[in-house]
Amino acid sequence: MTTKREPSGEDKLIERFFKPLATHSGALALSDDAAYLTPPAGHDLVLTTDMTVAGVHFFPDDPPETIGKKALRVNLSDLAAKGAEPIGALLAISLSESIDEGWIAKFSRGLGEDCVAFACPLMGGDTTKTPGPLSISITAIGKVPSGKMVKRAGAKAGDLVVVSGTIGDAALALEMKKRFLSGGLGDLNKPQAAELMRRYRVPEPRMALAPLLRDYANAAMDISDGLVGDLGKLASASRVGAQIETAKIPLSNPAHDAIAGEAALLETALTGGDDYEVLAAIPESRFVMFAEAAGKLGVPVTRIGTFGEGEGIAVLSPKGKPLSFAKASFSHF
Amino acid sequence: MTTKREPSGEDKLIERFFKPLATHSGALALSDDAAYLTPPAGHDLVLTTDMTVAGVHFFPDDPPETIGKKALRVNLSDLAAKGAEPIGALLAISLSESIDEGWIAKFSRGLGEDCVAFACPLMGGDTTKTPGPLSISITAIGKVPSGKMVKRAGAKAGDLVVVSGTIGDAALALEMKKRFLSGGLGDLNKPQAAELMRRYRVPEPRMALAPLLRDYANAAMDISDGLVGDLGKLASASRVGAQIETAKIPLSNPAHDAIAGEAALLETALTGGDDYEVLAAIPESRFVMFAEAAGKLGVPVTRIGTFGEGEGIAVLSPKGKPLSFAKASFSHF
Repeated sequence: MTTKREPSGEDKLIERFFKPLATHSGALALSDDAAYLTPPAGHDLVLTTDMTVAGVHFFPDDPPETIGKKALRVNLSDLAAKGAEPIGALLAISLSESIDEGWIAKFSRGLGEDCVAFACPLMGGDTTKTPGPLSISITAIGKVPSGKMVKRAGAKAGDLVVVSGTIGDAALALEMKKRFLSGGLGDLNKPQAAELMRRYRVPEPRMALAPLLRDYANAAMDISDGLVGDLGKLASASRVGAQIETAKIPLSNPAHDAIAGEAALLETALTGGDDYEVLAAIPESRFVMFAEAAGKLGVPVTRIGTFGEGEGIAVLSPKGKPLSFAKASFSHF
Repeated sequence: MTTKREPSGEDKLIERFFKPLATHSGALALSDDAAYLTPPAGHDLVLTTDMTVAGVHFFPDDPPETIGKKALRVNLSDLAAKGAEPIGALLAISLSESIDEGWIAKFSRGLGEDCVAFACPLMGGDTTKTPGPLSISITAIGKVPSGKMVKRAGAKAGDLVVVSGTIGDAALALEMKKRFLSGGLGDLNKPQAAELMRRYRVPEPRMALAPLLRDYANAAMDISDGLVGDLGKLASASRVGAQIETAKIPLSNPAHDAIAGEAALLETALTGGDDYEVLAAIPESRFVMFAEAAGKLGVPVTRIGTFGEGEGIAVLSPKGKPLSFAKASFSHF
C-alpha cells in the first residue's frame, strides 16, 4: 500500500495561477525549491525588493488586477531608474483570510499581463497565509552592462534636475480618495478623477529610459516617496545641493486643475509619493540629446532645476520665493 | 533658504540596524534603490524566496534574534539542498505596531550573526509598517557551477532515500508548545524540551552538503513541510515511487523518547515540517563515499529507504507494515 501524493491547496494555487507566469526556463515551472539563472555575459545583475501591504500601499478594495500590476511595477521602476532591463521576478505573497480564488485569479491575471508586457517572467515564489492584511513582496532582477548601474551618488554641481512624465498625480489621487466623503478634490470632473486614480493604481515604470540613463545620467533614482524628499536623497548621496522651480514641474491636466483650485495641493503633489517617475541628474550640455532620445521613445522628460554646490534642496515659487514644506517626503514611519 | 534633508524614521532604522549587515560592495551600504552583483564566472545563480509571518511560521514571542536567524536559514536551507553556496540576501520586512527599536536591534543582531556565519551579506531590502502581524520576506541568492543546480526531478529507481541530521524535532517542539498548558510531551526533561525548541527556532541549514550534493545526488530538496510529504514531492517530480522504513529514520534523543512515550507522535515527526534537513536521492553504489565525505564535514546522513518504479510513498513500520497518515505534509492551506 502506498500513499499517493495529493497536491495541497498551496500546490493547486501555484499550479493554476502562478505557473503560467513562470515562463523562464530556470524557473522550472515553479516545481522546484529554487530557480537558476545563467547570468548574461558582460552584465551585472541589478536586484531590488519592495513589499506592499493592503491598507498601507494600496487599498484592499483596489481591483486585484491593479494590485498585481503595481506590486511588480514599483520594482520595475527601480530597475529602470538604475538603467537596468528586467530578467525576472520572485513573488512572496501572504494571503489574508478574505482572499478567495476569484481574487487570486484576477491578481495573477494582472501580474501575468505585466510579466509579459515587461518581459519579466516569474522565477519563483512563496505563498502563505496570514491572519493580517494581504502582503506582497516582489524581488526583481535586472541586468546592466558590467559596471553600468546608474547610482544615486554621482550628480555634479551644474547638472540639470530632470524628471520624466508628470509629478503628483498619485499623491493627489490618494488625497482625493481620503476626501471622498467630503466631495473629492475641488472641481475635477469624473475623467480627471479617474485619470489620477489610474496613475495611483497602475504606475508607468519608465523602462524605455533605462539605456538612455546609462548613457546620459550622472545619477538617477525613481520617485517613490515624493519628489522633494527623493531629490534630497539623491543630492545627499551625491554630496551636492539642488534648486528646483515649481513653475517648471510637469503636471498632468487634472493635477494642474486640482492645484489651481487649491494651492495647498502643490505640497501634496511634490511630497506625497507614488509617482514612479525617473529623477535624474543630466549634464546640461547633454540634456537636449537626452530629451530628444527620450521623446522618440514616447517618454517626456523635463528639466526642473539644477544641482549646485553645498547641500539641501530649495524649491522656488514662480516669484522666486523659497517654499518650505511640513515634510519633504512620504514615510510610513 | 534650503531644506536640509532630515532622515526619516525608516532611514534611521536602516542606517543603524541593517546597513552593518550590508557588507557586499554591490549593496552600496543600502544607500541606493538597488544592488548590483557581478556574477561569478562559470556559475549559475540560484534564487529562492520565503515569507515568514508571526503567528504562522514563528511565535510572536520567540526571541527576536532567533526570528532573524530562522528567516534567513530557511532560505539558506533551500540553497544548500540545491547544491548552492550563498552570495547574499534581500530582506523585506513589514513591522507590526508592537515592534520597537529594542526588538529590531535584537532581530538584526541575530540576522547579522548569520549573515557573517554563512557568508551571506544583506544586499538590499525594504522596510515598511503593517497593521497586521510582523512579516519577513527574504530572497536568497546563491551560486552553483554552471548547469549544476541539484533539482527535485532526477531520482532514479534504485537510488537510496537519504536524509541529513535528525527528523521531527521541530514538529515535536511545535506540538510541545501547543500542549504547554496540558503538561508538554510525556516525560521529556527540560534539556530535552529545550533541545527540541532550539531545533524549531534555529534550524541548521546544511551548507556543508552543497558541494557533495552536486557530486553525488541525482535529486535533492530540503525538508520544510514534513518528510513524508516532501519525499512525495521529490518522487513525483522524478516520476518514481519510494519506500522508507520508520526504524531507519534518524531521531534525536528527545524525539526518540517522546515517540517511545506516545507512539502517535511518530506521525507528527514524519509529517509536521520545519526540519530543514536535506532529502536526497543517492545512487546506492555511491552512498558510502557520500556518507563518509558528509561525516568528515560534520553532517550525519542516513539511508532510510529506496526509490523504485511506480508512484507513491510507502512508509513501513519495523514489522514491515505500511503505515498511513491523516495528511502527508504540513500546509497552511
